[in-house]
Amino acid sequence: MTIRVTVWGENVHEQKNRAVAEIYPATMHGTIAAALNQAGGISAGTVTLQDAEHGLTPAKLAATDVLIWWGHAAHGEVKDEIAERPFKRLMGAPCNLSWREAGERERLWVTSRQHPIARGLPDHFEIEHEEMYGEPFGVPEPLETVFVSWFQGGEVFRSGLTWRRGAGNIFYFRPGHETYPTYHQPVVQQVIANAVRWAHNPEARLTDPNAAPNRPVGQTLEPVVERGPRLHHDGEAGLR
Amino acid sequence: MTIRVTVWGENVHEQKNRAVAEIYPATMHGTIAAALNQAGGISAGTVTLQDAEHGLTPAKLAATDVLIWWGHAAHGEVKDEIAERPFKRLMGAPCNLSWREAGERERLWVTSRQHPIARGLPDHFEIEHEEMYGEPFGVPEPLETVFVSWFQGGEVFRSGLTWRRGAGNIFYFRPGHETYPTYHQPVVQQVIANAVRWAHNPEARLTDPNAAPNRPVGQTLEPVVERGPRLHHDGEAGLR
Amino acid sequence: MTIRVTVWGENVHEQKNRAVAEIYPATMHGTIAAALNQAGGISAGTVTLQDAEHGLTPAKLAATDVLIWWGHAAHGEVKDEIAERPFKRLMGAPCNLSWREAGERERLWVTSRQHPIARGLPDHFEIEHEEMYGEPFGVPEPLETVFVSWFQGGEVFRSGLTWRRGAGNIFYFRPGHETYPTYHQPVVQQVIANAVRWAHNPEARLTDPNAAPNRPVGQTLEPVVERGPRLHHDGEAGLR
Amino acid sequence: MTIRVTVWGENVHEQKNRAVAEIYPATMHGTIAAALNQAGGISAGTVTLQDAEHGLTPAKLAATDVLIWWGHAAHGEVKDEIAERPFKRLMGAPCNLSWREAGERERLWVTSRQHPIARGLPDHFEIEHEEMYGEPFGVPEPLETVFVSWFQGGEVFRSGLTWRRGAGNIFYFRPGHETYPTYHQPVVQQVIANAVRWAHNPEARLTDPNAAPNRPVGQTLEPVVERGPRLHHDGEAGLR
Repeated sequence: MTIRVTVWGENVHEQKNRAVAEIYPATMHGTIAAALNQAGGISAGTVTLQDAEHGLTPAKLAATDVLIWWGHAAHGEVKDEIAERPFKRLMGAPCNLSWREAGERERLWVTSRQHPIARGLPDHFEIEHEEMYGEPFGVPEPLETVFVSWFQGGEVFRSGLTWRRGAGNIFYFRPGHETYPTYHQPVVQQVIANAVRWAHNPEARLTDPNAAPNRPVGQTLEPVVERGPRLHHDGEAGLR
Repeated sequence: MTIRVTVWGENVHEQKNRAVAEIYPATMHGTIAAALNQAGGISAGTVTLQDAEHGLTPAKLAATDVLIWWGHAAHGEVKDEIAERPFKRLMGAPCNLSWREAGERERLWVTSRQHPIARGLPDHFEIEHEEMYGEPFGVPEPLETVFVSWFQGGEVFRSGLTWRRGAGNIFYFRPGHETYPTYHQPVVQQVIANAVRWAHNPEARLTDPNAAPNRPVGQTLEPVVERGPRLHHDGEAGLR
Repeated sequence: MTIRVTVWGENVHEQKNRAVAEIYPATMHGTIAAALNQAGGISAGTVTLQDAEHGLTPAKLAATDVLIWWGHAAHGEVKDEIAERPFKRLMGAPCNLSWREAGERERLWVTSRQHPIARGLPDHFEIEHEEMYGEPFGVPEPLETVFVSWFQGGEVFRSGLTWRRGAGNIFYFRPGHETYPTYHQPVVQQVIANAVRWAHNPEARLTDPNAAPNRPVGQTLEPVVERGPRLHHDGEAGLR
Repeated sequence: MTIRVTVWGENVHEQKNRAVAEIYPATMHGTIAAALNQAGGISAGTVTLQDAEHGLTPAKLAATDVLIWWGHAAHGEVKDEIAERPFKRLMGAPCNLSWREAGERERLWVTSRQHPIARGLPDHFEIEHEEMYGEPFGVPEPLETVFVSWFQGGEVFRSGLTWRRGAGNIFYFRPGHETYPTYHQPVVQQVIANAVRWAHNPEARLTDPNAAPNRPVGQTLEPVVERGPRLHHDGEAGLR
């Protein structure tokens, strides 16, 4: 089964910043998608902020198994009715952190032995030039901590974290500042391909993820005799 | 230290529905607050949907240590700029479930031995008339499962769950359908008082929960020589 | 890739109890293995308490990807040097519960939508005759709660739970009392096959899961000048 | 309510190693207990490996609310019938890691904002000379990650982690190599006092943490008619 991936990119810095454009002549989202298309079993395409509906039409989402979201400068330009800062929205938390842009060394350590997202990786790997993100990282406790980063300037960061929301698996991956060639690094491409395979849920999609069905008295699994006052009629739609 | 509690109530059914008004002549939020004020070490007040800014003014929130939210029929009437369905917002998930209003028996079982929220409780207790909520409950995996409910009609539900978001502790408690006298039951009042004490974080409040401070190169904890291109100037506010 | 499963059975009641022998003429472990061998992509065999080293020789374990453990009456007869009550050992907790043997109805509800272990299942299923296990269940908080059971006598139980230990995935499944034909029920066989596929970790096995390597000063990733007193010599084996 | 703490120490290096004896003339466990006795609301005593039953008599444990365990060189000398490497036993996992003894700088970052164990701490603090422990750390996923360490040599480590087992709260704290004056550092003493207060469970102790009571048919909460064959008689002790 081929996993269908959509890579969403802001596509702002690639167009406006010469340094970024030189590092990523094919854009960051394009570079990520190209690497995924080489990984095997994955078919990846791209959409951007500038596309109609930011590229996230119902038809596109229906044909997407795993969505990769690259956001940085233009979070505020994403229309709420399309996708309201999806990571913060899924976390229900500020997701804040400290940061520094100095091209310093980052070293990621695997913290969950033999995790599918760490498949084929050594126990640590380095990115020679990266932006620093520092703890505390304002996210909910994760299901799993897969990577923790060491930074040259003295900070640490939980750089690979997993959560589940509904039937969906979420992986947060820290690296990828636009002024450094991070997405050209094979080990980073490997992490992203691993994460796509891990996140993919082959089960049939839920028809209505918000369904809140009434189970009326006449159809209970065990006998129930209705008692007391009530607010709703049988089969009525639930309050949401 | 007295814990300052604000009980938020929709205050809709108490005003419009005769059955509810008869069970809760002092309203549901008023009943909950009165019980908390008897519990010791807690000072509880109430606000409602109908108050200006739904009662959730900055001054009120600044004077609130623990917020209790009772929502059911009027989720949609809460203005987004005040509080956008706070539980769903904190969960980042649909929070959906199945339901039935038949006044059936619910029995809650303690699933976490000696948890502070189960303090002084037997290993199970019954609510003779309740609405049924059934699994699957569309919430993220909790930190802890404190109660699981058995329903007469054959369903189960994870009725007491905890999460943390930022510096805040969250407890979800299922029972409390407005047409039944649940909040008059001493064991339910005990759970709510226990949960208030558990949720209370005595630490100083974060001045800015969204702060994302820059750590400039000249002030690093370990020596860093800046390298490579950059997007930001020193001390600049981070992208959010 | 075929997943190699070893089903470990006590094989006590099948030999000594006529009722059990009539329900499971091929033994319980044999019934489970036969169902797995029909499931596709799985090659299952069996070993028992009565085998030399309880069947768990180093060679057998080396050829086992997923181990299924059925224990009940003879936990105490398993030699500690072979396998010391493996579930309790992995949990680090009492794993105790309340129980009743009355052939009552159990109904399992899926609590994690579209989880791989619930693949192809309805949102609930019934086992008409089962032993009751009741909460509180003395296990650590799980990574995921996949099933919660309703019992006719009024109890509930978290019947499907996951954990990880090292590189291994653990699934606990409650049903399967030996005097009832639970393992002949197709939906139960489906859960077990799903769980085998979920638990299987295709990564290369760790050579030494207890390795605690020294990283001597001369080989650090970043420059370190040794300072202060020390207890160990370079390259010395760590304390365990 | 005064929290009764017992600090267990190996008391080996303090007696045999001159460097350790000079740093800790009052022993490490004695230093920790003395600091706790200054913290307020805590009454701390010490026991050692060399005491009869390693000091962990039933009477001592009955009078202990929180146990602090300092183990390093002599894990193997603790008799299994007294306490079988309690941390590994509670984790059910290897708890292995990489290490280096070079007196290098460790910097601990708070990763859970306003957590009770981080009470009164800055967002990071340094220990100028410490042993390095490196990831991957072979423990189960924690309930909460409270501290992550940065090491001068390039490694990271999850240095403050919480779990629950039964009714007990567990906190793992990494620092404290015996050849460095870590336990004299006020911020470390603060962490330990915070952790004691956090771990303390004021609920009545469970009489029998392993109790597995039978709930016989005649005393069910809901009507049950016994059906099918059975193995046990009413009221019989459960299989463990």
